Amino acid sequence: MAQRRLPVAILGATGAVGQRMVQLLASHPWFEVAVLTGSDRTIGKPYGELVRWILDTPIPERVARMVVQPTEDVADVAIALSALPTDVAREAEPLWAARTAVCSNASAYRAVADVPLLIPEVNPGHLAMLDRQRAERGWKGCLVTNPNCATISAVMPLKPLHDAFGLQKAHISTLQAVSGAGYPGVASLDILDNIIPNIADGGEESKIEAEPRKLLGRIEDGRVIEAPLTISAQVTRVPIIDGHTALIAASFAQRPSPEEAIAVLETYAPPEIVRSLPSSPERALIVHRAGDRPQPRRDRDAGRGMSASVGRVRACPVLDLRLVALSHNTIRGAAGGAILNAELLVASGVVS
Amino acid sequence: MAQRRLPVAILGATGAVGQRMVQLLASHPWFEVAVLTGSDRTIGKPYGELVRWILDTPIPERVARMVVQPTEDVADVAIALSALPTDVAREAEPLWAARTAVCSNASAYRAVADVPLLIPEVNPGHLAMLDRQRAERGWKGCLVTNPNCATISAVMPLKPLHDAFGLQKAHISTLQAVSGAGYPGVASLDILDNIIPNIADGGEESKIEAEPRKLLGRIEDGRVIEAPLTISAQVTRVPIIDGHTALIAASFAQRPSPEEAIAVLETYAPPEIVRSLPSSPERALIVHRAGDRPQPRRDRDAGRGMSASVGRVRACPVLDLRLVALSHNTIRGAAGGAILNAELLVASGVVS
Amino acid sequence: MAQRRLPVAILGATGAVGQRMVQLLASHPWFEVAVLTGSDRTIGKPYGELVRWILDTPIPERVARMVVQPTEDVADVAIALSALPTDVAREAEPLWAARTAVCSNASAYRAVADVPLLIPEVNPGHLAMLDRQRAERGWKGCLVTNPNCATISAVMPLKPLHDAFGLQKAHISTLQAVSGAGYPGVASLDILDNIIPNIADGGEESKIEAEPRKLLGRIEDGRVIEAPLTISAQVTRVPIIDGHTALIAASFAQRPSPEEAIAVLETYAPPEIVRSLPSSPERALIVHRAGDRPQPRRDRDAGRGMSASVGRVRACPVLDLRLVALSHNTIRGAAGGAILNAELLVASGVVS
Amino acid sequence: MAQRRLPVAILGATGAVGQRMVQLLASHPWFEVAVLTGSDRTIGKPYGELVRWILDTPIPERVARMVVQPTEDVADVAIALSALPTDVAREAEPLWAARTAVCSNASAYRAVADVPLLIPEVNPGHLAMLDRQRAERGWKGCLVTNPNCATISAVMPLKPLHDAFGLQKAHISTLQAVSGAGYPGVASLDILDNIIPNIADGGEESKIEAEPRKLLGRIEDGRVIEAPLTISAQVTRVPIIDGHTALIAASFAQRPSPEEAIAVLETYAPPEIVRSLPSSPERALIVHRAGDRPQPRRDRDAGRGMSASVGRVRACPVLDLRLVALSHNTIRGAAGGAILNAELLVASGVVS
Repeated sequence: MAQRRLPVAILGATGAVGQRMVQLLASHPWFEVAVLTGSDRTIGKPYGELVRWILDTPIPERVARMVVQPTEDVADVAIALSALPTDVAREAEPLWAARTAVCSNASAYRAVADVPLLIPEVNPGHLAMLDRQRAERGWKGCLVTNPNCATISAVMPLKPLHDAFGLQKAHISTLQAVSGAGYPGVASLDILDNIIPNIADGGEESKIEAEPRKLLGRIEDGRVIEAPLTISAQVTRVPIIDGHTALIAASFAQRPSPEEAIAVLETYAPPEIVRSLPSSPERALIVHRAGDRPQPRRDRDAGRGMSASVGRVRACPVLDLRLVALSHNTIRGAAGGAILNAELLVASGVVS
Repeated sequence: MAQRRLPVAILGATGAVGQRMVQLLASHPWFEVAVLTGSDRTIGKPYGELVRWILDTPIPERVARMVVQPTEDVADVAIALSALPTDVAREAEPLWAARTAVCSNASAYRAVADVPLLIPEVNPGHLAMLDRQRAERGWKGCLVTNPNCATISAVMPLKPLHDAFGLQKAHISTLQAVSGAGYPGVASLDILDNIIPNIADGGEESKIEAEPRKLLGRIEDGRVIEAPLTISAQVTRVPIIDGHTALIAASFAQRPSPEEAIAVLETYAPPEIVRSLPSSPERALIVHRAGDRPQPRRDRDAGRGMSASVGRVRACPVLDLRLVALSHNTIRGAAGGAILNAELLVASGVVS
Repeated sequence: MAQRRLPVAILGATGAVGQRMVQLLASHPWFEVAVLTGSDRTIGKPYGELVRWILDTPIPERVARMVVQPTEDVADVAIALSALPTDVAREAEPLWAARTAVCSNASAYRAVADVPLLIPEVNPGHLAMLDRQRAERGWKGCLVTNPNCATISAVMPLKPLHDAFGLQKAHISTLQAVSGAGYPGVASLDILDNIIPNIADGGEESKIEAEPRKLLGRIEDGRVIEAPLTISAQVTRVPIIDGHTALIAASFAQRPSPEEAIAVLETYAPPEIVRSLPSSPERALIVHRAGDRPQPRRDRDAGRGMSASVGRVRACPVLDLRLVALSHNTIRGAAGGAILNAELLVASGVVS
Repeated sequence: MAQRRLPVAILGATGAVGQRMVQLLASHPWFEVAVLTGSDRTIGKPYGELVRWILDTPIPERVARMVVQPTEDVADVAIALSALPTDVAREAEPLWAARTAVCSNASAYRAVADVPLLIPEVNPGHLAMLDRQRAERGWKGCLVTNPNCATISAVMPLKPLHDAFGLQKAHISTLQAVSGAGYPGVASLDILDNIIPNIADGGEESKIEAEPRKLLGRIEDGRVIEAPLTISAQVTRVPIIDGHTALIAASFAQRPSPEEAIAVLETYAPPEIVRSLPSSPERALIVHRAGDRPQPRRDRDAGRGMSASVGRVRACPVLDLRLVALSHNTIRGAAGGAILNAELLVASGVVS
């Protein structure tokens, strides 16, 4: 693959997701951080001096010395990873996509018809949309997005079940970690010894109900035909640091027995091109048989935070099947997901 | 009502629920703690010396000096409140019921056909089963039970909705506090910064799936005819002290709009005989319109821990209606529930 | 005392401490909330609509309908309770004090020579400073302050020990609850599964080192002569909601044995005028002999949050005596402390 | 060093510390787990089936298949790492030491005159005691111990300060994580939203007050002459998973300025033989200048859990100097400490 490491920009590098991108790229075999962008208050200062670093490993020294650039100054890089807030992303991402490949964690363009919403293990074929995107938009670069951090916990196990049995309906209740709200995010006075039965910005449930339809859709003429699914989401915030849990009940065209479902989940393997990506975990899905797993603190770091863990697969008396899924929300569900998308762009030749 | 306060025994007084019973009866207008029973290790010692008191108010001084009796020595009291472990309850409760009225929080007899499973606001008419119970069992006393602490969070709001619209199916996900496991119960190493997607003893989900059918059933010839409901439960343990949350999605014979459902919940009033009980909260159901309620820490103590709180009532794309319910698991869901049942026995003339 | 309840203003009513004042005055026998003030963004709106209410009891309905006034408009009330931020307090409190009695929780004037720093149980005689304060400042009203929320946990038990044995030095390590930082205050990402070995604003340790000298000082000619104490403070933030713990080691002019110290603490009684105040707890100091007390969750609410709890009184091999003290930081240490000061002003005839 | 990896026994392998030893030896360059011992209930069963594994990485597969042996059957291994409970250690460790080198985390022999209490960075010279130990006890093996998990947080920074300035007195307040109590250990009902101002077994403070005298002592004729220090300890349990914090105030023969102390801490380097051990961290001491560090969640894993972190070094008005120290209690303070001792035995030729 890349002989020299490809230069990468991190857009919105000072926030919680931007920091994770910096952390995950610290010793990446293909990518090298070349540009960091931030808001007005941060421009022109060394990253290490202005960032309120919240992660548990130190800031990479080389990156700490880099000077933050304005987000609107599009730079000459191979890939831009975007951790921008939604409203900034809406303005800035098309500017960057006109020139380079943008892998965005922002929600601004996730629902737009010609923008792939991408999980490499789930719908790598959606990259086929990019030719039409570039042609119609007149972009030299491109724009791909990764889904909401809670969507991803649920869709990773639902994908092979959908392929095997035809997913029709799902009821998804989530227990989401505080890191999903960024920093400072959730006030400790609101969440210590407490549960909040919603996510503050209010749109979380709509995203979880809509995004799986696009992720599990098929491509025709460079456009996504959404899968005809109905999803109901109930989200909660819980007092844990990292790891989103999804409690799932689902019905299918062909009702699977729990054993059939477990067999499908345990034998699931992503396409070879995905498995060979540097950030791909050894196992995309880890199926637990113990009755008390998956658990956020004990399972979120599986596969360096990139595996999804599944457990409690059993019959459901109301729908067909129940299961519990978990993934790391700021790695697999955000920064790591965007980086995996960038790796797929390189491996599939979109970026070179 | 009672001129003199009625003597009450607390069976299994040293555990977490027994302690709550002691606390709640400290200044009860009708009842006075007359007997405390415990296991072999505790017999003959003053309660205050042997109990590992875990509540946040001090032990009532009079009770602290009382000497613990063997559970198998049936005493001459008006009512026995049982906080016994299941296996001990199975042996001891019939002995006490032969002589006095037993209000049990144990699960041993909840599913037995001639034993009422009772929430005064939900099914006070089930007391009609007691004549047949006494006749067939040859008891001078009687035995009534209260449901599982998680069942009660869900059933209190489902009762008026069932009456109005005919509940058919429900999917219930719970987020349960650590106090539900008693003391020492859940190890801090298991639950700090963590979620456990099950309840340790394993039978929790079966109880939540079965008990509402009995609670919402009707009485014929002194027997319960269970309501034809299908319930699916997914339980979790979360790092909070008190308060069980139930995330509910339900379908009905007549699909209500959210506004219709809210109207039914807001205007719900238990029968007059129930509302006048000393432990009855001013409002059995508190309906929240704010998008982030109910929350355990902020709502569990409503109505001195005896109200159920409901919020986020909205349409469900998979079933008909979604809502979030919450109640205090060791007060409404255990000790306070048993005491309220005892009060109903007095008010309805079963005990005098 | 008061036949009719005295009208009270709450300055800075929307913050965490202001909310506690509203809550504690909901059914106060002497005081009635007459005016609420707030910052520009809040003026002219009903309190109940704009406040982000964070307490676990509902907003009193009458107060919820009150319209918020500008802090700079001094109103005709008997007492103003100030929960203002420091910089606003510096401007506004003298304006109010020119006309009425101000009881402030802000730190702006705590260290000023003619302003009493007051804990009724500790130094009620410091009210003697007010004649000189009024004369020199030309105020019709007056200004008294209560100490930092962590100082108070330590000084309440140190006062009787100082009287008996002559306090000379103390080393105080604190474990402070997140509510001490107000709302939103401490980010959950900073404090879940974590300790912060400092308090964000940085001046906390200086306050704890300085305030006891003034509190334990004596009055001469209407001025405080500070007590010649040396104190070393080390503060930490811990993941609990309410309750500041102080780990204290102290040396005295006359070294007490632990038994002597316990005897002094157990027999301590504030002056009669203080004990009769409505917010005075039955016991100002609660001395625990159990080796694992006081604990924040189990002891912070003692005396409706107004008692200080003490335990682990024992000899110290480095200084003379060690003990652990605890009090509720937003009740005794802030809102309740200011209200108790206001009650003392009434009982002592300063306000009528 | 070792061409083939040396066979190691883990005594008491099923508990929390034993599990950490298994985890840390999973890919150790010098040692290979050859024997696991356990209590009666565990003997004869595969480790993976009987252990209640509580760590966040999976059980090494080879170890999971190993059958647990009785602790009293001394095996032919190069080194025995002991994670035994105190009372079992008292019986079993001499049996093993008669034949092999025992590195114990148990407290049973820490205070015994001829048993080194060893931290390689602090007192490697204490290995000189072993000749006399072997001669007098008639052992072919030997016994060395590591200190209490809270002692080690404090002594690692105090060692270079003692060498430079002559430590005389220290007051140490600790904030200790729940993992220090083993599993199940601290009940969640006791510690959520709470602090306990003691450690359950009661002897923690005595250990912290006594062990530094031995650790900082000098060797004469194969015996330790304890350092003439006076230490006062106040311990607390806090709701965090891992990482013990020590708040330290200390006085010295020569009072250092904070800058002098920081310089000594920053330039501290253990002897070369220690720095080359496989488990030695790159930096034994990490000195923080930020005013809010060290923090358990952000600093406990420094140096793979083997570094001690220090911060807030400043003058103390009561003693001379204040500082905050932190280390990982189950790695550096227990399992990793014992392994580092074992490595030092190999590197210094005691074991070969």
